[in-house]
Amino acid sequence: MTLEAALALDAADPLAHFRDRFVQSEGLIYLDGNSLGQLPKATIAATTELVTKAWGERLIRSWNEGWIDAPARVGAMIAPLIGAEADEVIAADSTSVNLYKLIVAALRRDPARTVVVSEAGNFPTDLHIAEGAVAAVAGAELRVVERGALAEALGADTALLLLTHVHYKRAERFDMAGWTKAAHDAGALVCWDLSHSAGAVKVELNAAGADLAVGCGYKYLNGGPGAPAFLYVAKRWQDALHNPLSGWMGHAEPFGFADAYAAAAGMKRWLTGTPSVLGLGALESGLALWDGIDTAQVAAKSAALWNIFHAAGTAAGLECVTPSDPAKRGSHISFRHAHAYEIVQALIARGVIGDFRDPDILRFGLTPLTLSHADIWRAGEMLVEIVESGEYRRPEFAVRNAVT
Amino acid sequence: MTLEAALALDAADPLAHFRDRFVQSEGLIYLDGNSLGQLPKATIAATTELVTKAWGERLIRSWNEGWIDAPARVGAMIAPLIGAEADEVIAADSTSVNLYKLIVAALRRDPARTVVVSEAGNFPTDLHIAEGAVAAVAGAELRVVERGALAEALGADTALLLLTHVHYKRAERFDMAGWTKAAHDAGALVCWDLSHSAGAVKVELNAAGADLAVGCGYKYLNGGPGAPAFLYVAKRWQDALHNPLSGWMGHAEPFGFADAYAAAAGMKRWLTGTPSVLGLGALESGLALWDGIDTAQVAAKSAALWNIFHAAGTAAGLECVTPSDPAKRGSHISFRHAHAYEIVQALIARGVIGDFRDPDILRFGLTPLTLSHADIWRAGEMLVEIVESGEYRRPEFAVRNAVT
Repeated sequence: MTLEAALALDAADPLAHFRDRFVQSEGLIYLDGNSLGQLPKATIAATTELVTKAWGERLIRSWNEGWIDAPARVGAMIAPLIGAEADEVIAADSTSVNLYKLIVAALRRDPARTVVVSEAGNFPTDLHIAEGAVAAVAGAELRVVERGALAEALGADTALLLLTHVHYKRAERFDMAGWTKAAHDAGALVCWDLSHSAGAVKVELNAAGADLAVGCGYKYLNGGPGAPAFLYVAKRWQDALHNPLSGWMGHAEPFGFADAYAAAAGMKRWLTGTPSVLGLGALESGLALWDGIDTAQVAAKSAALWNIFHAAGTAAGLECVTPSDPAKRGSHISFRHAHAYEIVQALIARGVIGDFRDPDILRFGLTPLTLSHADIWRAGEMLVEIVESGEYRRPEFAVRNAVT
Repeated sequence: MTLEAALALDAADPLAHFRDRFVQSEGLIYLDGNSLGQLPKATIAATTELVTKAWGERLIRSWNEGWIDAPARVGAMIAPLIGAEADEVIAADSTSVNLYKLIVAALRRDPARTVVVSEAGNFPTDLHIAEGAVAAVAGAELRVVERGALAEALGADTALLLLTHVHYKRAERFDMAGWTKAAHDAGALVCWDLSHSAGAVKVELNAAGADLAVGCGYKYLNGGPGAPAFLYVAKRWQDALHNPLSGWMGHAEPFGFADAYAAAAGMKRWLTGTPSVLGLGALESGLALWDGIDTAQVAAKSAALWNIFHAAGTAAGLECVTPSDPAKRGSHISFRHAHAYEIVQALIARGVIGDFRDPDILRFGLTPLTLSHADIWRAGEMLVEIVESGEYRRPEFAVRNAVT
């Protein structure tokens, strides 16, 4: 691939105009949109308006002027990106807190089913939260097995199969329909963590027959740092499952001020405390960009970007750990190298921001809305230069940060 | 009290200059700062800077440039307002979610103690969450009794006494030291909900020997709508108690990406998911205003504002349900009236924003930093006029909103 070829792909790219709707810094190629998505330009004005007008001037009245419905409204905007109905998704809390709610709820559905099955090496908070959730249900336990042993771990005692759709490190994608069926065949529910899927790949929760899902607002959805997360409960489970974090915002009548809890109908019961209005506002602004986008075009561009960067990484001698079949991966690419940390730091020093993941993974987010083919080509050239020249061996690149 | 007398109090008020540090709307007297605090002017620039620079330009690097420490940093700013040490407080999630964490943790401390005691008519989410929390611990139960029966409800089976320090509706304040001692005498822990106390009255958690506390960032702390909440764990309990919502941000090594959960030392274990960075930023800006404020002056001004508005309400024939002893109340005042809802609506139509609380309470927040004595005098005059003239009987004031 030459730069000219990359520029030609940009010229023909139907999504190319989205890049200018995000704040771009001169000299920066940001390959970490799968960790924190870039800032949509429109979000600057939206946040200022929310702060100065809705909070500053309208004050408490704003709860009646849009805030109280924001969790459901934002959820409805996420729904088409994950193959759900508008009234099956709500924005709330963090991914971790939402996972806790759904795992406990699934465990309480049927006392005879006591086991949560998940994958070793799943995103840590999924396993950590599952540990906490099983402790909240008498007799429940967490069974964490290697991917190859998942199928045989499902059985008559399984309450829930808890999987992350696209692996945070290697970008491997589970076959959602296949694993949902496997869980159902065992009589269990399935919960999908869509943190690296929503806005990255085509997700079809309802077509796959999925039961539960959670996901993150601050990655491909560009909702801002620590944006509210979301949760999905298939309509057929909405009456049967209950939120263990039974706070007033999930009450059938939050402003009735009754002592006893009574769960709201539909998705509202999955709310707990007062939602982060600033966070919801920024997330809503980020989601507005997705209106009308053809996710097939997003997937096609992701694949094209992937091919360019895969070629560069391979040329640099890195071992790619992400599946080459686009249907079996997300929208990031990861390589293994003994000096992964130093190479990532050397790239950052050159203005190419990727991610290091312990112990030896270089991870690069290929976000179709914010990146051009030429961006990826240029980043790939730098990767090759840094590895081939040994530039990454400079001592300053070995200094560790708190967050990487 | 005459307007001249109120203006004279303003002229002598050492806190008077704070009023101009908040966005004030022409013609509005905002007596709802105990529901949603006003916008500090400095927060507009702080939020814009956070969005455009830290998110927009620095992107993921900002986690290493201040974001990762924000929960502890903000907690340390709250600590002096509640009589705690800097390393006993952390900002996280919502008040409801934090209540769940602490109630479950307290119940798990000693399996022989299975009962959470709380007050009927406590703020609903405290009771709702306690209902959810006892369901997460085998054999645990919630015992909700009238205030007069609390003392006898404490016993050898009590794990936790859960009280709201200043009542959300009537503003009655519990004697923190006395009730903490009563809980300890029974061998139980105490958890204080400080939502209507922090920034409103002098709170002395450590002097009272308190064990646990939670509170709200969006009321007197002016942190913005749905601001992150906080939690306090006395140092002597920090090793023994564990967060049931065991997410990655509370892990000893969040970026070690291990499968097994290992709790962080100190307050960090009370974090769960990725924190709301926008929310923390606005809260931090609101808290900066409190730096160096003498809380004795805050209490004195609260009492002076209270006297002015109490006189007006009484003149209007309303029944005051808030204790007259300043040491036994918070910084809001509540009246009972059969047409409470309509009177509140009539006041709002005149630009005086108070709160209605079901079924018959008018509630007015008297926030010492944002209000002048003359503001309160003028609002009192309007209250008298509205009641005496029967203005509140106009049909439009009977129309109910979703949030009141």
